[in-house]
Amino acid sequence: MTTPLNERRFANAIRVLAMDAVQKANSGHPGAPMGMADIADVVWREFLNHNPQNPNWINRDRFVLSNGHGSMLQYALLHLTGYDLSIEDLKQFRQLHSKTPGHPELGYAPGIETTTGPLGQGIANAVGFALAEKTLAAQFNKDDIQVVDHFTYCFLGDGCLMEGVSHEACSLAGTLGLGKLVAYYDDNGISIDGEVEGWFSDDTEQRFKAYGWQVLKVDGHDADAIRKATVEAKAETAKPTLIMCKTVIGLGSPNKQGKEDCHGAPLGNDEIALTRQALGWTEEAFVIPADIYAAWNAKEKGATSEANWDKTFAAYQAKYPTEAAELLRREGGVLPADFAAKADAFIAETNAKAETIATRKASQNTLQAFGPLLPELLGGSADLAGSNLTLWKGAKGVESDPAGNYVHYGVREFGMTAIANGVALHGGFIPYVATFLMFMEYARNAVRMSALMKQRVIHVYTHDSIGLGEDGPTHQPVEQIASLRGTPNLNTWRPADTVETVIAWKSAVQRSEGPTALIFSRQNLPFQTRTQAQIENAAKGGYVLAEEKGELKAIIIATGSEVSLAMEAYAQLEGVRVVSMPCAEEFVKQDAAYREAVLPAHIRARVAVEAAHVDYWWKFVGLDGRVIGMTTYGESAPAKDLYQHFGITTDAVVNAVKELTA
Amino acid sequence: MTTPLNERRFANAIRVLAMDAVQKANSGHPGAPMGMADIADVVWREFLNHNPQNPNWINRDRFVLSNGHGSMLQYALLHLTGYDLSIEDLKQFRQLHSKTPGHPELGYAPGIETTTGPLGQGIANAVGFALAEKTLAAQFNKDDIQVVDHFTYCFLGDGCLMEGVSHEACSLAGTLGLGKLVAYYDDNGISIDGEVEGWFSDDTEQRFKAYGWQVLKVDGHDADAIRKATVEAKAETAKPTLIMCKTVIGLGSPNKQGKEDCHGAPLGNDEIALTRQALGWTEEAFVIPADIYAAWNAKEKGATSEANWDKTFAAYQAKYPTEAAELLRREGGVLPADFAAKADAFIAETNAKAETIATRKASQNTLQAFGPLLPELLGGSADLAGSNLTLWKGAKGVESDPAGNYVHYGVREFGMTAIANGVALHGGFIPYVATFLMFMEYARNAVRMSALMKQRVIHVYTHDSIGLGEDGPTHQPVEQIASLRGTPNLNTWRPADTVETVIAWKSAVQRSEGPTALIFSRQNLPFQTRTQAQIENAAKGGYVLAEEKGELKAIIIATGSEVSLAMEAYAQLEGVRVVSMPCAEEFVKQDAAYREAVLPAHIRARVAVEAAHVDYWWKFVGLDGRVIGMTTYGESAPAKDLYQHFGITTDAVVNAVKELTA
Repeated sequence: MTTPLNERRFANAIRVLAMDAVQKANSGHPGAPMGMADIADVVWREFLNHNPQNPNWINRDRFVLSNGHGSMLQYALLHLTGYDLSIEDLKQFRQLHSKTPGHPELGYAPGIETTTGPLGQGIANAVGFALAEKTLAAQFNKDDIQVVDHFTYCFLGDGCLMEGVSHEACSLAGTLGLGKLVAYYDDNGISIDGEVEGWFSDDTEQRFKAYGWQVLKVDGHDADAIRKATVEAKAETAKPTLIMCKTVIGLGSPNKQGKEDCHGAPLGNDEIALTRQALGWTEEAFVIPADIYAAWNAKEKGATSEANWDKTFAAYQAKYPTEAAELLRREGGVLPADFAAKADAFIAETNAKAETIATRKASQNTLQAFGPLLPELLGGSADLAGSNLTLWKGAKGVESDPAGNYVHYGVREFGMTAIANGVALHGGFIPYVATFLMFMEYARNAVRMSALMKQRVIHVYTHDSIGLGEDGPTHQPVEQIASLRGTPNLNTWRPADTVETVIAWKSAVQRSEGPTALIFSRQNLPFQTRTQAQIENAAKGGYVLAEEKGELKAIIIATGSEVSLAMEAYAQLEGVRVVSMPCAEEFVKQDAAYREAVLPAHIRARVAVEAAHVDYWWKFVGLDGRVIGMTTYGESAPAKDLYQHFGITTDAVVNAVKELTA
Repeated sequence: MTTPLNERRFANAIRVLAMDAVQKANSGHPGAPMGMADIADVVWREFLNHNPQNPNWINRDRFVLSNGHGSMLQYALLHLTGYDLSIEDLKQFRQLHSKTPGHPELGYAPGIETTTGPLGQGIANAVGFALAEKTLAAQFNKDDIQVVDHFTYCFLGDGCLMEGVSHEACSLAGTLGLGKLVAYYDDNGISIDGEVEGWFSDDTEQRFKAYGWQVLKVDGHDADAIRKATVEAKAETAKPTLIMCKTVIGLGSPNKQGKEDCHGAPLGNDEIALTRQALGWTEEAFVIPADIYAAWNAKEKGATSEANWDKTFAAYQAKYPTEAAELLRREGGVLPADFAAKADAFIAETNAKAETIATRKASQNTLQAFGPLLPELLGGSADLAGSNLTLWKGAKGVESDPAGNYVHYGVREFGMTAIANGVALHGGFIPYVATFLMFMEYARNAVRMSALMKQRVIHVYTHDSIGLGEDGPTHQPVEQIASLRGTPNLNTWRPADTVETVIAWKSAVQRSEGPTALIFSRQNLPFQTRTQAQIENAAKGGYVLAEEKGELKAIIIATGSEVSLAMEAYAQLEGVRVVSMPCAEEFVKQDAAYREAVLPAHIRARVAVEAAHVDYWWKFVGLDGRVIGMTTYGESAPAKDLYQHFGITTDAVVNAVKELTA
């Protein structure tokens, strides 16, 4: 530490705002903001290129607080630098309807780039930001004009580094040489359980060097050292940089600094008073002297930065009008004007072909059709490209072509998904990522985060059930589809054939308000014949695929591979209709009249059939219905043997209907 | 490579069995077994201390194939060394009801120590085996007699090393100094997508040294080097060892070795013929010459090893009869004879106290009561001991006391859970592990694996809903409880108060056939009054907590924190009963008469209330019922504000009942 604590007035403004807001809320985490205040002072006042008056400026530097529990650090920074976040907002920390929730959440305070709190995912998002920047730059920058050119800064703590997702994301960041990513590790030696040495003794410098990162070590309270390291980090363009900052958690609190006590609880009024003394801070709570506000304020500097960039962009626009328009289109998340029409044409073409193929193959065919229309697609798979069928002819790996559109993520499901969230948040891309449906579980919380943040991430999951056969129960999903369907704001599609597959992809691409999970089969699925009206209704998530012969007595509801079983049963029955329900979440959003037309309330003889956990379907069949599906784990055997073994058969459907209508 | 390929007859026996079985199944992974055959030859014929005639011998070395897709390697080894796994069994590879499923699965072939396939979890299980061995040894060994003394060997591949869980588990293994863990990395440079250099360029030696491991590098086809490294690994008792073995995937296949083509598909008959030539192998498929069988057979050596250990154990028994009996009890998974009675006494005591406290606190009280009775408990938390309340007065950290009973796992939910699976599989312990319910998602697939493997692992999840308040939606579970309930063979308890908490813990401890998730509140929950009959029925998972006044017209079903809302509603209504359903999975296992007595089929006015996703409850309330719960994400605010905001209130329950019975 080079400057006495009571002379660090700019950093101390963060410290007092953090401790006071946490105290007022009687809940929160003062330790990290107080410990990282000196680092934040240097990064935000000297390096971060941003415009508080336009948090959406395309070329801003991105900032991610991966240790999101330290949210008051970020709120203090946004307030002090001039974002639309008032001192009243800070006083409402952690209250209902405030802009300052307990963890930084996208869409609440301006300037929050991503929702953090679940540890390790922030740094993975940051890797996604850096990957998006590098790829977008390679796609759009010209030798004479660079319009995409920003850094991504990330703060992270011990918890982030212990989490496995940090390994996945940082290893890949090293391999991809994301040189404009700068991470600051709050190396305070403390986690919730106490001094980390008993459970975290990694040589983190060595670990990150093993990933191909530049690693620098500084005193996290020494502004000169932080400044010098940041300059060095920015100068290294071939490798991401980790700046390990030795810090004291809760610095300034005479009795609690350096201890876990200040991590996740208010300091208490007495200790706050002592801390004010130690900091030489004489103002009341939530009062910041004008000179300090002035020193922090980044509005003018930000406006100048953006104006300079505007000039650059104007030159780009003049010289490269097509590219400029395309960049703005993609950054705005607007699809090409002809996408919907061309997608519909491909649906018609697919319908005409009437192919019986696996839906994973139908998905690849769709990518082959949509890929040339959508340069914003940034695909990838967790080392299962040939199984997930996520490559198409125009796919080029970013590891060999920086302007490419495909990422070989390696066996890193969680890292992949959290990186894709960062890519989507950055803007300019629609990421799609793939693995076997079972290994969605490795990425589970990142899937949820994509939905919580309303990001257009397309999660492609193949090998969707016991239908994958011999790989056995470790690979055969049972309860996974229900888990996805229960995730708020996620759409989950399980198409029955080629046509429903294209419809699902179209819906996913068009869904700007959130992510979609696309569930595909390993095995071939029979093509179903549909009218144009049925094709249109399929986009509603649930529709009558086969009208009842005679008076309606019973309904069979099916998805994906089981639609063909339902249709075989239908052929043997009278008075029965088949409802294909590829996306139950879309179906329940339809108006009551449509839903009633598909599933009339008075028909209680209802049979759902799906090679997945039965419990999801009681919602649609009720106490008087039947569900044919799974209640146990699968087994290793050829798929056809498994369907027999588990009783998911045409006969079972026929018998269930007969029993209910007897 | 020191020996010509065609002279490696023992290793080649593995190669041909693997390629032939995969070919016969027309499905599977020949590459890894063929690549690791030379390593396996050395480890299994020269080092592994096991007895094929008694796969359950307590002191056997443990072997884990973390790259489980190479299952034919392990099946070949078990067959060749003399386990009860015939050549006919190998011919049934990947067929229904065979002993040789697609991935190694516990309970199918003898000698399989854990189910692998989901990458990275095998090495984490192996860390659990090594942790269990070290802890059990410290608890039972005497200066003069060591009865627990074995190694854990693990094979792993590139995929395992890319997965984040390998970071979590291996980092902790280094910190804990698990010196009797020896891992062999199949460093073949190939993953499914091709040559890994484009997506996996870690310096793995440096990475593992950063974790505090000994790292050795060898040619994985050089028996002398593998032997020497293994000796060196065993000699290093303070650190785990990673032996990096440079190998050629699919070695022996002239056209496919060294390429991803041989990873996950049969070689094809032509290539198999060419491989036979290259290996100098003249036998038909599934024929192994007698001299090769003889050289592999480990029955005699194994019987001698076990007999020697039996002598040691007899001496231990003579000198330390109490400890010997206790070790056998614990290894057998048998609870202390007085556990049930003492647990019941504690239930009665808890009932008498009638405390209104958080169920996480009630859980800690239960641990305080059960801990002294159950020395087999090996607890832990992912850096949330003070929040999960998993420490009790007798808890001692293994990082400071090797004979301790508590692991500070650090912020490593997935690693923790997969390690706990290994601990349970090892025997001698009942592990309990804890985190916030939301971060169960980080560990999701390991929770599933505990259930698939039927292991007694107790998953403690606190902060169970919006009731946690200010931390907001990233920390507030919504769909997680439904996901757990859908997991086959997992019991999920969400107790309403202190008494149900003790009952849930008792059930979890007694449940030898599988894992249990215990879901606890952050906030205080009112005590509910119960009769002795109700206390007994609570163990059935669902029971009538409040009998209807007058004729039964409606039923309110609730769990956990919402039981008190249901009871408040009950006080305002006539003809309504309250069913507390702490464990729906146990309830549905009860006989039909009991279930009908609790939930009479003709009563369709049913309201379920739970601060979790509504969808689970349609199963119990049907198309005519109501569910009061969550359909969106939570918000950051004090808990009481959130309950109002989301309409999970007594009034909502009362109104729903009134509407249904109007």
